[in-house]
Formats: sequence, structure tokens, C-alpha cells
Amino acid sequence: MEITVKEIAEFLGGTVSGDENTVIRGVSGIDEAGQGDITFISNPKYRKKIESTRASAILVAPGIKSEKTLIIVNDPYIALAKALRFFDKGEEHPQGISSEAYVAESARVAETAVLYPGVYVGPDAQIGERAVLYPGVKIGSEAAVGEDSVLYPNVSVYRKCLIGKRVIIHAGAVVGSDGFGFANPGRENFKVPQIGIVQIDDDVEIGANTTIDRATLGRTWIQRGVKIDNLVQIAHNVTVGQNSIIVAQVGISGSTSLGRSVIIGGQAGLIGHINIGDGVMIGAQSGVTEDLEPGQVVIGSPILPHRKWMRAQTIFAKLPEIYKKMSQLEKQVRDLEQKSEKEK
Amino acid sequence: MEITVKEIAEFLGGTVSGDENTVIRGVSGIDEAGQGDITFISNPKYRKKIESTRASAILVAPGIKSEKTLIIVNDPYIALAKALRFFDKGEEHPQGISSEAYVAESARVAETAVLYPGVYVGPDAQIGERAVLYPGVKIGSEAAVGEDSVLYPNVSVYRKCLIGKRVIIHAGAVVGSDGFGFANPGRENFKVPQIGIVQIDDDVEIGANTTIDRATLGRTWIQRGVKIDNLVQIAHNVTVGQNSIIVAQVGISGSTSLGRSVIIGGQAGLIGHINIGDGVMIGAQSGVTEDLEPGQVVIGSPILPHRKWMRAQTIFAKLPEIYKKMSQLEKQVRDLEQKSEKEK
Amino acid sequence: MEITVKEIAEFLGGTVSGDENTVIRGVSGIDEAGQGDITFISNPKYRKKIESTRASAILVAPGIKSEKTLIIVNDPYIALAKALRFFDKGEEHPQGISSEAYVAESARVAETAVLYPGVYVGPDAQIGERAVLYPGVKIGSEAAVGEDSVLYPNVSVYRKCLIGKRVIIHAGAVVGSDGFGFANPGRENFKVPQIGIVQIDDDVEIGANTTIDRATLGRTWIQRGVKIDNLVQIAHNVTVGQNSIIVAQVGISGSTSLGRSVIIGGQAGLIGHINIGDGVMIGAQSGVTEDLEPGQVVIGSPILPHRKWMRAQTIFAKLPEIYKKMSQLEKQVRDLEQKSEKEK
Repeated sequence: MEITVKEIAEFLGGTVSGDENTVIRGVSGIDEAGQGDITFISNPKYRKKIESTRASAILVAPGIKSEKTLIIVNDPYIALAKALRFFDKGEEHPQGISSEAYVAESARVAETAVLYPGVYVGPDAQIGERAVLYPGVKIGSEAAVGEDSVLYPNVSVYRKCLIGKRVIIHAGAVVGSDGFGFANPGRENFKVPQIGIVQIDDDVEIGANTTIDRATLGRTWIQRGVKIDNLVQIAHNVTVGQNSIIVAQVGISGSTSLGRSVIIGGQAGLIGHINIGDGVMIGAQSGVTEDLEPGQVVIGSPILPHRKWMRAQTIFAKLPEIYKKMSQLEKQVRDLEQKSEKEK
Repeated sequence: MEITVKEIAEFLGGTVSGDENTVIRGVSGIDEAGQGDITFISNPKYRKKIESTRASAILVAPGIKSEKTLIIVNDPYIALAKALRFFDKGEEHPQGISSEAYVAESARVAETAVLYPGVYVGPDAQIGERAVLYPGVKIGSEAAVGEDSVLYPNVSVYRKCLIGKRVIIHAGAVVGSDGFGFANPGRENFKVPQIGIVQIDDDVEIGANTTIDRATLGRTWIQRGVKIDNLVQIAHNVTVGQNSIIVAQVGISGSTSLGRSVIIGGQAGLIGHINIGDGVMIGAQSGVTEDLEPGQVVIGSPILPHRKWMRAQTIFAKLPEIYKKMSQLEKQVRDLEQKSEKEK
Repeated sequence: MEITVKEIAEFLGGTVSGDENTVIRGVSGIDEAGQGDITFISNPKYRKKIESTRASAILVAPGIKSEKTLIIVNDPYIALAKALRFFDKGEEHPQGISSEAYVAESARVAETAVLYPGVYVGPDAQIGERAVLYPGVKIGSEAAVGEDSVLYPNVSVYRKCLIGKRVIIHAGAVVGSDGFGFANPGRENFKVPQIGIVQIDDDVEIGANTTIDRATLGRTWIQRGVKIDNLVQIAHNVTVGQNSIIVAQVGISGSTSLGRSVIIGGQAGLIGHINIGDGVMIGAQSGVTEDLEPGQVVIGSPILPHRKWMRAQTIFAKLPEIYKKMSQLEKQVRDLEQKSEKEK
């Protein structure tokens, strides 16, 4: 595939600085790019690489100047995404149901769905049009996978769980395992049956080896457009609001509810039964133990407002110095008191 | 299935407040319940929902009053568990060994065991009566699974590992991977073979994608009645004592030993070669680096006694204020000293 | 197998203290060892067990004295590793490709490779000599596995990813899932295609259920001799330098680069786009947000130099006491100021 810089700029809605007739054949990272490649600068940290890259063109944000051929766009990361979709058509799949997949008689699999070898689809399960189930995907009885969804190898969906349309689930993820519910914990550990489901709405992406537990009753609910990274734990009866972003290794405890557009940094943990407002941002490794109003930006374990935490952390390192000064002050004050006593 | 409130109360050992002839057809969450449903209040936080729920009856703890039909029980969560078991009989399984499962010739599989398609049972492995191996479960050579145990999709049990009776292992969990043992780490990284096993005793439950490493020598040992949540890491030669509870994403390092009824909150980490006494409670996100006497309640990284940590954390947020006051005090004391000097 | 203490000492390059004609038949842990077993002491914590063990011989470091039969070696842990390899020959595998494995027509599988039932090898994939793919391993199209590598059950390797020679990957690990790249996060969540690969060099070991994301462009790169524990998250475009050690549940964010021989303790997290120098040691549960020069030893979240953190942590527990003293000091200083005012 060959295309000129001018054509790419038109496709991306950007403007060209430099030779618009330069021919592009592919997309590449700034370090690896060679002649015929287009590359991008998104993180300002790498701006100086514009001069050293061998790429034939560079996607940049407004305000960057260079003798190199640039395509100036509002958001270079979105432009990159579009360029990648243009140059990379993704994997081609074999057609239909592999003879080495197992499909229960009562299951309904769309004719255009792709089932690789080693797939299992249980009784009364449904697989939508153009869905792709990679090798080793297991769909439990009465579960459903919507159209155009892609489940990568060895994903497990337990019975009755519902996966929407255009959902992507990466390898090894588990949807619908039992919630961790035991009465009289540490003594009797009496198991509470988990008879609810997991409902995953349209356009969700779920990372590799992430686990989402089914509800005790009702549903654990991942709403439309949510993106969840790898190795995340979502407990029973959690709700994750539309378009929220959950970075790797986060854990969300039971019955906690997230609003829309919440962003949670890696390795953060949330206790159960709390409400997180729309647009809240929670820093990496935070520990959240209370409700949060919409729009708050917090970090720490337990959390503080972001600025307050920054100031407190800065001083944390000075604690030995503070402790020493404190002892000195105590001595000085004692001396002053004794003097003052004598003077009486 | 239909049953009166009176009959349920008798079955659960509770007393009725309200109309004991009300007919119940199912169990539901307090928000979703409708006519004919019984629901429950366990967390006092939700007590006010008693008046708004449309459930026909509510399981509650003693002391709660309402015009609604209540069944008063000592522990509503245990009562819920019992009611759920009554109404939900769980999944029905096909009989016997699927023709699409692989069973080594020398393996012994009980006649009443259920092996779904895509199951692998290696040489000399044993599967007990009524055990259920969901699609994609892999049982290594010489490993054993006890009677009435249930292994969900894609669980991997390495060779020689022993799984007891009535054990539940959720999807993607790994039992018996090599312990992380390398001599001269960071330089030679010389692998120490891990030839021990994992032994899981009766009535244990293990969460989705949890990993339990085999011992270097001897065994990694999960004792009777232990419940482990999702994405937990148990390293080689760890012992987890009876009825302990380990919440999601906890990591326990090599050769550490837990007593009975230990409870560990989510995302906590324990270093290796330490002993944790019976009944210890470790807070979420804690970092434990020392032995703990029985019954201690600790939190923090590194840990402190719970109350001490709470007090210290409260003041952590005030560090900028403390630092400012300290500087003022220093100035004030300097001024006083100068005055005192002059007065001489 | 029978061998004398003298022969073992010669094999390990150690010296004997005690009866060198003692016959050894196996290796065992210090608590479980019986007559005919050799055991070892590596952690000084267990030194007193030398006298109580029933083992017939003990591998020890120089300087330890006992009436027991000892083999004195420079590094007992390395000696143990060698002894274990001597006594334990590992698992024997069936020959060749199971009739219940799926191999695409265009894939190239070496004649000496072992493919268990339920293995999937996609189009144009390559499997090297003597490689072992346990049941349920999935190799995507155009991916490659080098000679003598061992992939345990249910490992997923996405398309085009490259696995070197003598690599060990434990059950459920995922290599090549999409990096977590979304433009306009929290609002549009526009997916950036991830068209790069994962490259894993020779002699790497990867733990159970660990996830390694493919690069956006270029490669995520795990260099020679790296050892990664269970449940670790490696994001897109990360480089892990030779012989580095990454303990369980660590998370490394996108485009971060580690030098050689870096050691990262369990549950630590690193943000994206930073450089960690050769030989850096990062403590467990740390949070790293900045570049680190070679050889630094850090801990904490955010990190501090190890000693500084130790001192600050010690004082953290005294914060309530400091706060109280501060209030007292303020009062004392106020009193002194008033006195001084009056005296004027």
C-alpha cells in the first residue's frame, strides 16, 4: 500500500508542513522508523526525536516546528490510531465453526461467527453475527456473546453471563466466577451461593487474565465503552459506569459503584459498598475507603486530594529531620523555661 | 417452587413478623426484588431500603422493626445462603466423560465424575466420585482430584499435586507451577528445580486466575476450609492454616506460614519465611515483614497495630501544617533566645 | 539411585565434614528429610535445624560446624539446584504431535517437538526442536517458539510474537495481548491498534498467569535470562534488560525501560516512559515515578533511597506523638512569649 503525505493529511483532517508528495508505505515507532514510514510524537518527552528519526513523515500536535515533513493534527494519538487502522487490516480468520470446536445442540451460533478449534459453547448459549471465538474459549450454558465481539484464547465465560456487541476480551480473562461471599468468615466460612450474573455492555474491552465475578443476586455490570486493563479484579455486584478506564491490577470490592468516565490508576484498590462519582480520577496504588463526589482527583492509601497528598508526601521524606528538629526545639524551650524560672 | 414465609422461617430457624402465609417463589436483591421474592438486609448501611423494596419478605437481624413481612434470624447472611441453596439447585451436568475429553490410559476416573469436552487427564492421575471438570481443565500426571470437587474452565493442575474433597477451583487458576527459585539472582539466575507439590485439603475454594506454586521440596499446603479469592499469589512452601480467608490480589512469599482463621485483606503482601499466628487480621494493602503473634490486628506498609496506624494516618495528612508550625516555632524560639540573650 | 556423600561432594565441588561413605538416595527439605536424604541450609534463620533434622547429610555454607555429616559449599542454594537436577530427571513426555492437537497446514513443527492434546498452532507458526507444548497451549499465527522451550498448560501466545530458546512459560500466562492504548481516555476511549509484537529472548522464565502486552509499534522486549514471577503485568513497549528479576504481582507501565540485572520486589509498580538503570533494586510494594540511575536501592511509594525510607517509616509510627509534642511546644512557647512580654 502506497499513499502520499497529502492523502494521509486529508484522511486525518490535518495540515502538511514540508513535502506533501512524500510517499508513505507504513507506520512505525519513532526509533524504528525508516524511509517510507510515518511515525508520531504524542508524549512531549520524545519531541527531540523529531530531528533524529529516519521516518519520512511525522504526526505532531500544533506548535511543533521542524524541517522534517510533518502532518499537524489536533490529537496525534487519535491520528495514529486512524493511520494504524488504515494500514493494518488485522487478522484474517477461517470461516465458520471449526470441526474441532464443541457446540451444544441447543446453542445458537450465527452463521457468520468464527469458532476456532478447542472452543466450547454450552447448552442454550448464543453467539452473535461475526463474533470471533479464538482457540480454547469456553462459553457456559445460557451465556450470550453479541455480534462483532472478539474473545481471545482461553477466555472463560460462566453460565448465563451476557457479553454485548463489539466487546473485546483478551486471553485468559474470566467472566462470571463466583463472588467471594462467605458467612461467618474465618470460622465457619459458610458459602453463599452466587446466582447473579455478569452483564458486559457494548464496546467494552477487557484485558488479559482479568477476573469479573458474578453477582450474588442481580448483576455485576460493566457499562458501555468501559476499558479494563490486564489482571484487574472486579468483585460481585460492582457497577462500572460508561467509558470508565481501569488500569492494570486494580481491585474493586463487592457492591461498589463507579460513575461515568472514572479513571483508576494501576494497582489501586477500592473497598466494598462505596459510590464513586462521575469523572473521578484515582491515582495509581491508591486505597479508597469512602464515597467520592464527582470530579475529585485523589491519591494515596488512604486517599487524600491530589495536591494535599503531594505536599504531605514531600514532607514524609523529611520526617527524620523534623523529628530531630523537634528534639532540639524541646531542649531549647526547656532551657528558656529554666532561665525564665531563675530570673523570677 | 412455592413456599410460605412460615415454612421458610421454620427451615431457617427464624421468627416471622407480619403475614406468615405470604407465598415466596424466589430470592432477589433488595433493589431488584418484586412480589413473591424474599430478600435480605445484612449490611446495616442498606437498612433504610426495607421500606422501599417491593420484596414480599425480608430476612433481617434481630432488633429491626417494620410493617413489612420480616423473617428475623441471628445471621441474615447465613440465612440468605441457606435460602439460596434451597431455591437454586445449581447447574445440571451431562453424564460421564465427554468423547472430546482426553484421559490417559493409566488415569483412574470415577464412574460418576463429569469430564466436559477439552478436559485433559494425564497418566496415573485420579479423579474422584462426582467430581466435575469443566471444559479445558488440565490435570497433570499423577495428580489427584477428590470426590465432589468442581474445577471450572481452564484450570491447570500440575503433576503430582493433590486436590481434596469438595474443593472448588475457579476458572484459570493454576495449581503447582514452579516456585520462583533462582540462585545468584540478578546475575546467574540459576534455576533451582521445584520438585515438591501443592496439597489442597478438603472444602477449600480458590478464586479465578489465582496461582499456587509447588514447593521446592515438600509441599505448599492449603489446609481445610481455606477460602482464597481471585488473582492471589501463593509462593512455594507456604502453609495456609485452616479456615483462613485471603482476599483478592494478596501475595504471600515463599515459606511463610499462616495459622488458623487468619484473614488477609485485598492486595496485601507478606514477605517470605515469617509466621503469622492464629486469628491474625491483616488490613488491605498492608506489607507484612515480620512474625505476628496470634490475634493481632494490623495494617499499613510496613504494618502497625490497627489503632496506631489509624492515628498516624490521620496526622500524615497534616504533615504540611506540622512542617509550617515547626518553622514558626523555630523562629519564635530563636526570637526568645535572642531576647533572653540581650536581657543578660 | 544411590550415591555416596563423597561422590556428591565431588560433583558439587564441596568438601565433606563427617562420614563421606554415607549413602544418599534423594533430596528432601530439612523438616521432612529422613535417612538416606541429603538436605540443605541456605537461609541462616534455619541454622539451628541442623541438629534436629534426620537427614543423612546437609549442604551448608563455609563456617558451619556440627557433628552431622556436612558437605561444605560456597553457595548451598546453587549446590541444592545441582543436586536436584541430578536426582530429579523431570517429567517424561510422549513423543511427537498428539492426534488431538491442532496444527495449521502452513505451520512448521520440528519432528522432536512434543504437542499434547488440545494444543493449537496457527498458520505459519513455528515450533522448534524438542519444544514441549503442554495441553491447551495456543500459538497464534506467525508466532514462533524456539528449541527446548517449555510452555505449560493453557499458555496463550498471540500472533507474530517470538519466543526464544530454552524459555519456560508457566500455565495461563499470556504473551501478546493488546497494549492498553486509548486516545481521549474517559471520554471517547478511541482504541489505538496494537500492531507491534512481544519478543522473548533465550533462557527467560515467565510465571503463571503473567501478562505481557504486545507493542503499539515495534516490540515489547524481554531480554535474555530474565526471570518473571506469577501475575506480573508488563505493558506495551516495555524493555526488560538481561538477567533482571521481577517478583510476583509487579506492574510495569508502557514504554518503560529496565537495564540489566534490575531486581523488583513483589507488588511494586512503575509508571510509564521511565528508564531504570542497570542493577537497580526496587523494594516490594514500591511506586516508581522517575528515572533511576544504575545501582540505586529504593523503596516506598513514592520511592526514596532505602535508608532514608527506613528512617522516615520509623518516625511515621511516631506521628501522633510528634503531633502531641508539637502542641505542647506551641503552648510552652506562647507562655514564654507572654512572660517575656510582661517583663518588658
